[in-house]
Amino acid sequence: MKAKVTVMLKTGVLDPQGEAVKSALGSLGFQGVDAVRQGKVIELDLAETDAAAAEIAVKEMCEKLLANTVIESYSIEIA
Amino acid sequence: MKAKVTVMLKTGVLDPQGEAVKSALGSLGFQGVDAVRQGKVIELDLAETDAAAAEIAVKEMCEKLLANTVIESYSIEIA
Repeated sequence: MKAKVTVMLKTGVLDPQGEAVKSALGSLGFQGVDAVRQGKVIELDLAETDAAAAEIAVKEMCEKLLANTVIESYSIEIA
Repeated sequence: MKAKVTVMLKTGVLDPQGEAVKSALGSLGFQGVDAVRQGKVIELDLAETDAAAAEIAVKEMCEKLLANTVIESYSIEIA
């Protein structure tokens, strides 16, 4: 079973990486880029075959390791 | 118009970040994690209102800045 976790900084948390990308796009001549946020995506191959159990396990992984829940939010897709 | 770009290392390219996450999950007692790949996700707010034009612009941004196409592949979602 595969899981895809997307971790983004919460709204309101300053995102210097995103700002740097926005600025670099501007320097390269790309117009009309109003905002950029950068996050990370983690793809997991799990031995678990039950989707519900996999989601519970991945949620625990997010809380314990993959996301810093003070400043980051995460979303999980099981496929 | 919003665009979401996902950039992952190509298959076969060593992913030390993913390996580190896999190892850390193992240390925390999570069983059955067969493989982990880590990539980045970039969310763009664009002034462009035409989806086709936005996709063309974002593709150019990927080729020029957002992805290193020698070792990374990217996918674009326009919403």
